[in-house]
Amino acid sequence: MEKITVSIVTIGDELLIGQTIDTNSAWMAQELNAMGIWVHRRVAIGDIREDILAVLAAEAALSDVVLMTGGLGPTADDITKPTLCEYFNTRLVQDRETLQRVLHMFESRGLPILQRNVDQSLVPEAATVIPNLRGTAPGMWFEREGKIYVSMPGVPHEMKGIMESYVLPRLEAHFRTPAVVHHTLITSGMGESFVAERLVDFEAKLPPHIKLAYLPSYSLLKLRLTALGKDKLSTATELSLYFTELRERLADIAVADSDISMGEVLGQLLLKRNKTVGTAESCTGGLISSWITAISGSSAYFKGSTVTYSNDMKMKLLGVKQATLMAHGAVSEETVREMLAGALDVLEVDYAIAISGIMGPTGGSEEKPVGTVWIAVGNREKSVTVKYHLRYDRERNTQMAAVYAMNELRKLILELEPEGLN
Amino acid sequence: MEKITVSIVTIGDELLIGQTIDTNSAWMAQELNAMGIWVHRRVAIGDIREDILAVLAAEAALSDVVLMTGGLGPTADDITKPTLCEYFNTRLVQDRETLQRVLHMFESRGLPILQRNVDQSLVPEAATVIPNLRGTAPGMWFEREGKIYVSMPGVPHEMKGIMESYVLPRLEAHFRTPAVVHHTLITSGMGESFVAERLVDFEAKLPPHIKLAYLPSYSLLKLRLTALGKDKLSTATELSLYFTELRERLADIAVADSDISMGEVLGQLLLKRNKTVGTAESCTGGLISSWITAISGSSAYFKGSTVTYSNDMKMKLLGVKQATLMAHGAVSEETVREMLAGALDVLEVDYAIAISGIMGPTGGSEEKPVGTVWIAVGNREKSVTVKYHLRYDRERNTQMAAVYAMNELRKLILELEPEGLN
Repeated sequence: MEKITVSIVTIGDELLIGQTIDTNSAWMAQELNAMGIWVHRRVAIGDIREDILAVLAAEAALSDVVLMTGGLGPTADDITKPTLCEYFNTRLVQDRETLQRVLHMFESRGLPILQRNVDQSLVPEAATVIPNLRGTAPGMWFEREGKIYVSMPGVPHEMKGIMESYVLPRLEAHFRTPAVVHHTLITSGMGESFVAERLVDFEAKLPPHIKLAYLPSYSLLKLRLTALGKDKLSTATELSLYFTELRERLADIAVADSDISMGEVLGQLLLKRNKTVGTAESCTGGLISSWITAISGSSAYFKGSTVTYSNDMKMKLLGVKQATLMAHGAVSEETVREMLAGALDVLEVDYAIAISGIMGPTGGSEEKPVGTVWIAVGNREKSVTVKYHLRYDRERNTQMAAVYAMNELRKLILELEPEGLN
Repeated sequence: MEKITVSIVTIGDELLIGQTIDTNSAWMAQELNAMGIWVHRRVAIGDIREDILAVLAAEAALSDVVLMTGGLGPTADDITKPTLCEYFNTRLVQDRETLQRVLHMFESRGLPILQRNVDQSLVPEAATVIPNLRGTAPGMWFEREGKIYVSMPGVPHEMKGIMESYVLPRLEAHFRTPAVVHHTLITSGMGESFVAERLVDFEAKLPPHIKLAYLPSYSLLKLRLTALGKDKLSTATELSLYFTELRERLADIAVADSDISMGEVLGQLLLKRNKTVGTAESCTGGLISSWITAISGSSAYFKGSTVTYSNDMKMKLLGVKQATLMAHGAVSEETVREMLAGALDVLEVDYAIAISGIMGPTGGSEEKPVGTVWIAVGNREKSVTVKYHLRYDRERNTQMAAVYAMNELRKLILELEPEGLN
């Protein structure tokens, strides 16, 4: 079984000066992995001719495929295409189909066409042109000395369109790829080293073609089993035996048995129980609500939320008592309890999440330092309140608070309604 | 002026299989850039001995400094430290200070200590140990043959602590770094190629040590001027002349004259005018609200939001009329107008944003396809409604809709109140 390897090369100064976070590579790696192609290295370089030439030669020596993104925009600093011509010893020619597409795109939007837009249709003669249906810069496929090179624009949705419509299918056809199967268990409430300690003998008995990886993510820990095999079905069958054991061993801390977001975990629980949810958010400012609604179809169980940042709004929208706020403050067990009751009532939902805290960097006091968060989750019969002390920056504190709150609700739903409808 | 170069090396399978998005590299690049150190290459490799050895040799040949993150966790798959010993021809020894810190960390949390936690205090003898105050794995600084190598854990806040407290100051002391000054103008409403066309002669007259980069980001375009010079003050002075011209040339499309988020842009406008804001969100599900509250101090101008996902909640919380919803639907100009009026009233704010749309992938119709979004922004005197057709996936549509809505409010505030209080 031959192992197919890819180097992902990202071209552009914006990644080297940190103005852009590279989300393309993660997506590409996931897609390639799913079809049994291994990303061996990822390299980011600037818009510099010598660096591009050097990286192409070096990565082609190490990997079977070199996938490039970036460096193809319409503005002047782009030097990728001339450098590709130099590397492949070819010249730029006009691709009529690309030109037609660019002209049509600008005409249909009523925009004038500039020379630099027309120039998007210039491609190295040695390349197979890959249509870009979402933008002006086409993708380009090269083969030389048994290696494959693909150049694509760096704009994420354009790159994804080119990968899905052309590059992935063609790579699959070109190589006899091994089967790769992943299965992820998400856990919560126990640190990486303690989980690892519980799995020492489990790990020891894994065969060499099955690997276990620990991937901490906020307050969660993802455990990913990966198996390599000859065909998908037998590999998946073998992996499922190990996954079942893993899930049984960690049943007390398991959150989900696939790699889904907390919004999806909650959504599935609610759907199966035909229940609805809403939130009353202070410190998370609507983040929990936005994560719940990030799931397509969430309107089946999500009705609405109130973001009550000021005390006035906590009173007006949720009916929190002024006396409660005066006596205990906005960040208190008493306040989140009343926020929860208000949310259940106002939003007319079966379950709700209420949260209030101090995310920092300012706003803390000796009694309630930055990072103090009160969470209440519940339905009309039962509610649970918990207090957390978060120790990170504002962004991370907010995201962790959101994950914790959603996880509290998950636990309560499972406690109150262990069985779903199917 | 010597150019100091860094290679950032990320170690760990999770980046190669796409389970983790690399945010560390962008942060590191920003910090290094700010002190005049240039990131030359970024390379991600897996937890494989041969690959680690090869990348250390290759990157040290290309750059002055090799900054490594990852591969130092407490779980079994970590092979980075033994490989570092092999590369630097040294052996693992116990660092007493790290051991004390790890023991104390576990004791203070009432957790038992495992051998794998104790092993975190093993470090290559040739390394200068860098204390990690936020976790168990220390950083390690190596020097050999004029090159610097630093190994740090991959957990973002641990890496940041080690960089800020030790690595950045020590690199600054070690090198005579050039001054680097960036200044970013954010624009909206005009495509990259059209802006570039307007700036042809501006770009042509830029001296070689000043560069202009185009960085599209959702519906915005960031124009970043970067200058290299001998000292910070004279470099900044020179750059400011060019930046002023850039801003004047693009005054009609300028959104902000520094690299800040739309939440910060809006926040500054509101603060300067002593005005408040709230949102009535349907399709964005609280995202706009969470972006506004992501800014520390936002409680000065943000009171609250309603996320009204269902028609019932649009009526109940915002007073949208049933007749309006029946006649025009939830995604319509009439509905967002009533949502806006309701938000101004209910949230008791000076300005509000209302938004309703179909983010996909399902829910579209012939009349209202996926991507249709209606936005209303305004105060009690004036409101503006706009309709957009977004053409991307659910996540991107939602984020673009949020940026568009916030930008509409920005424009309206500037129209109604061109001058702030100071």
